[in-house]
Amino acid sequence: MGDIDSLAEFLAVAVDAAKSAGEIIRQGFHQKKNVEHKGQVDLVTETDKACERLIFDHLKKHYPEHKFIGEETSAVYGTDELTDDPTWIVDPLDGTTNFVHGFPFVCVSIGLTIGKVPSVGVVYNPIIDELFTGVHGQGAYLNGNPIKASSQTELVKSLLATEVGTKRDALTVNTTTNRINSLLFKVRSLRMSGSCALNLCGIACGRLDICYEIGFGGPWDVAAGAVIVREAGGLVFDPYGGDFDIMSQRVAASNGHLKERFSLALRETMEEHQS
Amino acid sequence: MGDIDSLAEFLAVAVDAAKSAGEIIRQGFHQKKNVEHKGQVDLVTETDKACERLIFDHLKKHYPEHKFIGEETSAVYGTDELTDDPTWIVDPLDGTTNFVHGFPFVCVSIGLTIGKVPSVGVVYNPIIDELFTGVHGQGAYLNGNPIKASSQTELVKSLLATEVGTKRDALTVNTTTNRINSLLFKVRSLRMSGSCALNLCGIACGRLDICYEIGFGGPWDVAAGAVIVREAGGLVFDPYGGDFDIMSQRVAASNGHLKERFSLALRETMEEHQS
Repeated sequence: MGDIDSLAEFLAVAVDAAKSAGEIIRQGFHQKKNVEHKGQVDLVTETDKACERLIFDHLKKHYPEHKFIGEETSAVYGTDELTDDPTWIVDPLDGTTNFVHGFPFVCVSIGLTIGKVPSVGVVYNPIIDELFTGVHGQGAYLNGNPIKASSQTELVKSLLATEVGTKRDALTVNTTTNRINSLLFKVRSLRMSGSCALNLCGIACGRLDICYEIGFGGPWDVAAGAVIVREAGGLVFDPYGGDFDIMSQRVAASNGHLKERFSLALRETMEEHQS
Repeated sequence: MGDIDSLAEFLAVAVDAAKSAGEIIRQGFHQKKNVEHKGQVDLVTETDKACERLIFDHLKKHYPEHKFIGEETSAVYGTDELTDDPTWIVDPLDGTTNFVHGFPFVCVSIGLTIGKVPSVGVVYNPIIDELFTGVHGQGAYLNGNPIKASSQTELVKSLLATEVGTKRDALTVNTTTNRINSLLFKVRSLRMSGSCALNLCGIACGRLDICYEIGFGGPWDVAAGAVIVREAGGLVFDPYGGDFDIMSQRVAASNGHLKERFSLALRETMEEHQS
């Protein structure tokens, strides 16, 4: 897992990268209003690529022997296979739809796995200036202050977050809304913010009690958030109740109490809408 | 409608009230973490009541001849009937579920109708310090900077916001999720932030392209937002396409282009799920 000193150094290097990338995102976010629609799409692509380049260059300079997995440019920078080697897994701009529209939930997500275990996580929202960090065995923090998951034990009083994703075929949409339909009878309310990484951080700081996403982009959406949730006393797991697999494109997270209740509710959802 | 000078004075008095109430909300929001669940419910109630008292006392001191409509204490302070008289319509704490959970979308909403027309609006989110204001004929502002609704003309590229409300009977939940199901095929994505007033302000500043809510609390959720949207060049209307009725518990808002397309899509939704 790396010793305590090296993990702390990995974190400091990742925070530097996230803050520099965040500055690029913040500029683009506020500049966006003055750009035509076609230009906005280009601005997203440019911002995304500029941030990924900055982050990977920074990490490679410090850790040339580490491996790298990114959303945009695996071909150029890295790999798409997760090994036991120290591997940086990066989403340079999570919440691209929010970025395009100017909805203030966008972030940089930088995670490091060692022996396939998420060990260092940095999620930075540069618009409202919230920096979430977590290091294996050393706790989770929001802007330097310790955070912890909520203490809610009742599903019916829980605030749930999910997303509707980007696929719009009938099977995906119907499955998505059937799940939401069933879960609404069992939780207090539902939030959709448009960023998987920030939903995970919402669990870590107790703003949300449960979140799940099924069929999202890839490990870059969850690598950083997973360690932040766990270090805050929360649980990260497969939505249907098994172990979390970072490569599976399925993730759920809850505080320390709600995992079994939620997974059961989600499995019941499938049965209700199959019969 | 009141002359320009008096509207500007009404706005200044309302902003003072919103900022003072916002300070109470901010304190409660950050204090909340240290309170047990049972105590949290009491804290919401106390915060809500303290803010309403502060706001109405402030407004009544300046405008004893005006009328008042509020969520909590119509019996004590005001009326539940809207007349042509200048009438302050106040939600002292919109987003109470968010307040309980620490999700940072909470606000004070203070609207003034004159001749039943929303004429002054103040929506203040004290957690992320965003003050939205609008005065009939004088534009809309976020923290003093002019704002305008988005320029998106295509429904399929639009960001939609709605809420799932608080009713959990089968008819309400099924109708709610059927609407969402149909609309997901027609818009880019969906957001749920938990505050009707802040959704309206999201339209006004172009973060969102469309929002709707059917069966919400009352006029206090929309009185301020309605004038802010309109002064930003957006449209406020009945979700099914008719004129906005502030007392109807139905509201939709869009930028200047999407009203007809959205209302048609929503009416199609009803037909799809009736057949």
